[in-house]
Amino acid sequence: MAKSCYVAYQGEKGAYSEEAIIQCFGSEVDTCGFETSEEVVEAVQANKAEFGFLPAENSIAGTITQTYDLLLESKLTIVGEYYFRIHHNLLALPGVSITEITNVYSHPHALAQCQQFLKKYSLKPLPEWDTAGSARKIRQENLLTSAAIASKRAAQIHNLQVLFESIEDVSHNTTRFFILGKGEVARAEKSKTSILFSVRDTPGALLHCLEVFATYGLNLTKIESRPERNRPWHYIFYLDFEGYIEDPPVEQALVQLLKRALFVKVLGSYPEGALPEWQKT
Amino acid sequence: MAKSCYVAYQGEKGAYSEEAIIQCFGSEVDTCGFETSEEVVEAVQANKAEFGFLPAENSIAGTITQTYDLLLESKLTIVGEYYFRIHHNLLALPGVSITEITNVYSHPHALAQCQQFLKKYSLKPLPEWDTAGSARKIRQENLLTSAAIASKRAAQIHNLQVLFESIEDVSHNTTRFFILGKGEVARAEKSKTSILFSVRDTPGALLHCLEVFATYGLNLTKIESRPERNRPWHYIFYLDFEGYIEDPPVEQALVQLLKRALFVKVLGSYPEGALPEWQKT
Repeated sequence: MAKSCYVAYQGEKGAYSEEAIIQCFGSEVDTCGFETSEEVVEAVQANKAEFGFLPAENSIAGTITQTYDLLLESKLTIVGEYYFRIHHNLLALPGVSITEITNVYSHPHALAQCQQFLKKYSLKPLPEWDTAGSARKIRQENLLTSAAIASKRAAQIHNLQVLFESIEDVSHNTTRFFILGKGEVARAEKSKTSILFSVRDTPGALLHCLEVFATYGLNLTKIESRPERNRPWHYIFYLDFEGYIEDPPVEQALVQLLKRALFVKVLGSYPEGALPEWQKT
Repeated sequence: MAKSCYVAYQGEKGAYSEEAIIQCFGSEVDTCGFETSEEVVEAVQANKAEFGFLPAENSIAGTITQTYDLLLESKLTIVGEYYFRIHHNLLALPGVSITEITNVYSHPHALAQCQQFLKKYSLKPLPEWDTAGSARKIRQENLLTSAAIASKRAAQIHNLQVLFESIEDVSHNTTRFFILGKGEVARAEKSKTSILFSVRDTPGALLHCLEVFATYGLNLTKIESRPERNRPWHYIFYLDFEGYIEDPPVEQALVQLLKRALFVKVLGSYPEGALPEWQKT
């Protein structure tokens, strides 16, 4: 791993993750893409990148369990969260018009999310590895009768024109990203804390643990259970709640939780991200 | 929708879902595949199929939120659950040997889960819509130097040979399916009940709801929160617990829950499925 950059992500240049990083950190940010999420975590751990940027949940697909599985085992902490609204775009070589296009390449999920648009223009969807790679393919193979569904950032990188913007059928497609790092973060005006914990699968065990948050007036914003692999009757819970790790009620709640749970792991305490569009009225 | 069958699923013949149905209902079962999960639900609602068979969660990908979203809005109930262990296989035309193969087609997820195997034999992974369609492609286009990663059922349907079995890198890949129907199910030796409910996002609101299950000694086996679309500060919870809907403690708990939650929807009360392999010691 020779790469060295500021923010590491999974994917190639022009991936939605990279577009999200630029929106979050600004256009001057130095990014590097890795093939897998594991490599992103390794890059930050090995000081090859300052931060890792991984999806935590998506409004369509739900929780990205792979990211949580990595957090369970890594020493990195969540130092921030960022909500990113994904818009799909139809990209083609400059000068090509929509009437000349017959095939559209993209990741199966992106193609599925633009079904109505594709039908309207009688375009044939063809599956590819990912959205950014589809844009690269159009340029590399000089495809004059094909288009790609990808980010605007991918159009910029591969010098393609954006034929149509926001072609998705779905009215909401927001990804919540975790910004992963090594340090601790100061208290923000509104902080959120993420933890993992495990309980024995006996009636009331989870409730017994959750009680501590109510006792100290801490509002839960996410809860999810997951059976532990190879350990029957053990569950892992992902929990987010409002509050900073050094707030006395948070400290007290965690101390009480430690007495009741099988184990507790604090994933991070970080500034609350701006509410996504799809959650606003 | 002219099709009429016993069990409807999403995908085409040879999809892992169809393989799971056969394992669950027996080889004589009459199945029909639909393009989308919505169509599966519609087929059952319109009496075009007796049951729908949709994935609820997967040990790698987590909860299939799309299925829950459909359950939230449909009138179908969960009449059963089934755990299915997914094994990937390398399929090729009869007579072709592994040394002749250069390309391997499949869904990107399946290809990603067999990375080590593909590297070992220097096979080039190529993305396709789905696993069963990749098998069909090998046969239809008579590809003599390509293989597909798909189910054994797909090999049987498209008259392909299984060159290698269980080629996945991951040691666990289990999908929990919901069997959806219109009727109610009798009490089983061990029954499980699935519900959805919504609470206002105030400190302690969720806990206040969960208390009722502890009060009546009901063991929770799954809990998951999801922000409601377009309704800030409202969350929907998916909850599974042990017990049958007509058991007095279950009835009592639900009555109490109705007083505390914004709404409650019973998704079904059904026999508990056999524990998946990856949860056994």
